[in-house]
Amino acid sequence: MSHRVLLPWPDFDVPASLSATCYDGTGPLPEGAVLDEVEFYVLPYDQGPRPPTLIPRLPKLRVVQSLSAGVETLLPLLPEGVALANGRGLHDLSVAEHTLALIHAAQRDLPRWFAQQATGSWVREHTRSLADSRVLLVGHGSIGRAIERQLLAAEAVVTRVARTARPAEGVHAVSELPRLLPEADIVVLVLPDTPDTRGLLGAAGLAALPDDALVVNVGRGTAIDTAALLAETSSGRLRAALDVVDPEPLPSDHPLWKVPGVILTPHIAGGSASFYPRAKRLAAEQLRRFAAGEELLNLVR
Amino acid sequence: MSHRVLLPWPDFDVPASLSATCYDGTGPLPEGAVLDEVEFYVLPYDQGPRPPTLIPRLPKLRVVQSLSAGVETLLPLLPEGVALANGRGLHDLSVAEHTLALIHAAQRDLPRWFAQQATGSWVREHTRSLADSRVLLVGHGSIGRAIERQLLAAEAVVTRVARTARPAEGVHAVSELPRLLPEADIVVLVLPDTPDTRGLLGAAGLAALPDDALVVNVGRGTAIDTAALLAETSSGRLRAALDVVDPEPLPSDHPLWKVPGVILTPHIAGGSASFYPRAKRLAAEQLRRFAAGEELLNLVR
Repeated sequence: MSHRVLLPWPDFDVPASLSATCYDGTGPLPEGAVLDEVEFYVLPYDQGPRPPTLIPRLPKLRVVQSLSAGVETLLPLLPEGVALANGRGLHDLSVAEHTLALIHAAQRDLPRWFAQQATGSWVREHTRSLADSRVLLVGHGSIGRAIERQLLAAEAVVTRVARTARPAEGVHAVSELPRLLPEADIVVLVLPDTPDTRGLLGAAGLAALPDDALVVNVGRGTAIDTAALLAETSSGRLRAALDVVDPEPLPSDHPLWKVPGVILTPHIAGGSASFYPRAKRLAAEQLRRFAAGEELLNLVR
Repeated sequence: MSHRVLLPWPDFDVPASLSATCYDGTGPLPEGAVLDEVEFYVLPYDQGPRPPTLIPRLPKLRVVQSLSAGVETLLPLLPEGVALANGRGLHDLSVAEHTLALIHAAQRDLPRWFAQQATGSWVREHTRSLADSRVLLVGHGSIGRAIERQLLAAEAVVTRVARTARPAEGVHAVSELPRLLPEADIVVLVLPDTPDTRGLLGAAGLAALPDDALVVNVGRGTAIDTAALLAETSSGRLRAALDVVDPEPLPSDHPLWKVPGVILTPHIAGGSASFYPRAKRLAAEQLRRFAAGEELLNLVR
């Protein structure tokens, strides 16, 4: 009997020894889908906060492949003995370039120019810059390093922070933030949601930033105390450019939407055209390894 | 008698042997300004298309220091024997980062997210990407190279074009554009205004680009045939992100302002915070050289 694979898109490379069914996670299951036989489940990407409801209906499930880097909401849903591999690396570039998009948009006043464009107004003014800005990059995994390469190419001055200090690599510990925040023109958070990171940047940390500093979050919204950020941006003292917020989705009547100096995108940093070819290459390699009985990449458990 | 210097801002380093007057080019001349004695004139930056009207009133003028890279409009205004130095390099980073801002804004749909933010709408969708995009970079001077470094850090695939081919550096000639344009997802123009560059990207060149390609211009607006670009963007076939246009300023009723898929900023790429410290360092070095009788940097003639 062949192994069964459940895939989110039709055009994956699937080894001949496996049979695959395609289901994007929305609408009814396709005709002939035999959930009873599924052993390898590549989760649909970008389902928002909805849990993958199919998992309890897959009695022979052995591997779940997520295409996201953060899998914290999945772990409690997996039965004992089911392996979980994540999408580490797939989103690095997509998230990194959106991070740069947010920083450039804030530093170079893109909201202002777009507003002027709407009225046909040719009024020029100098803007802030990213070059020479002091950027505190909090989170130095693979996404953080991809962001750093682009910041350095833009000649920003980068200070690296991670959970624990790695002096040999010039990485400071999160515990040093109170000393580092006052020297930052821009602070970029690229952190997963863990008990350690929740509320990491609260009222005290935000108050430690210099006037006009830019707070950027592309990790998880819970790393920032939203009420404290709302207060510091509403007063005009700080600016923010956020792809993630707490809560998500941000309710349409939340006051953060309307604060001048705040740029908000709806958690779309990881979802760009560059993601798909990389996701398909990873899934194909994982299926090849699964069919050959080799160890999988990116195993979280 | 000390040399006289006319400066646009008050806080320059001026050698003790020189006396300086500060005039930003707007409003009346300051009390006591002795135009008759001025030998070294650092032009105000960012005056728009207005010519520097003071030049004919400076009989002892020996050096004009521009803080712009492009000095094509100045040359006809200078009396015989007056040296001209440009601001080559001062704007490289500022222009490069604004170029990246424009590209990111277009690829990552920032106008859409800003519009959603205005209505508090959390609707997610995948966007284009810069990573893996094929970028045709036309103009490979110091600004072009600064742009290239940032594009490469974002893992775009860059093809270099300059006026003449430099095969050893992998630089193609402008004459190869008809062959190169069909392979470009993004074309970036970073060209001065010269007889050779005027209308370089006309109807035929634009037609050679693939559907959905992005046209970026941060050099001089005259490099693109505006009517042809308006036609190709109005139809929705091409997109554009422009800091320079022809004519400038773009009249407020010009149809290009309103084309969906076109992003316009009012020739502000070079004017950001990172420019000023660099401009002051250059001017201080030039004044030191002038006072010491040494050869100036960045001489255009």
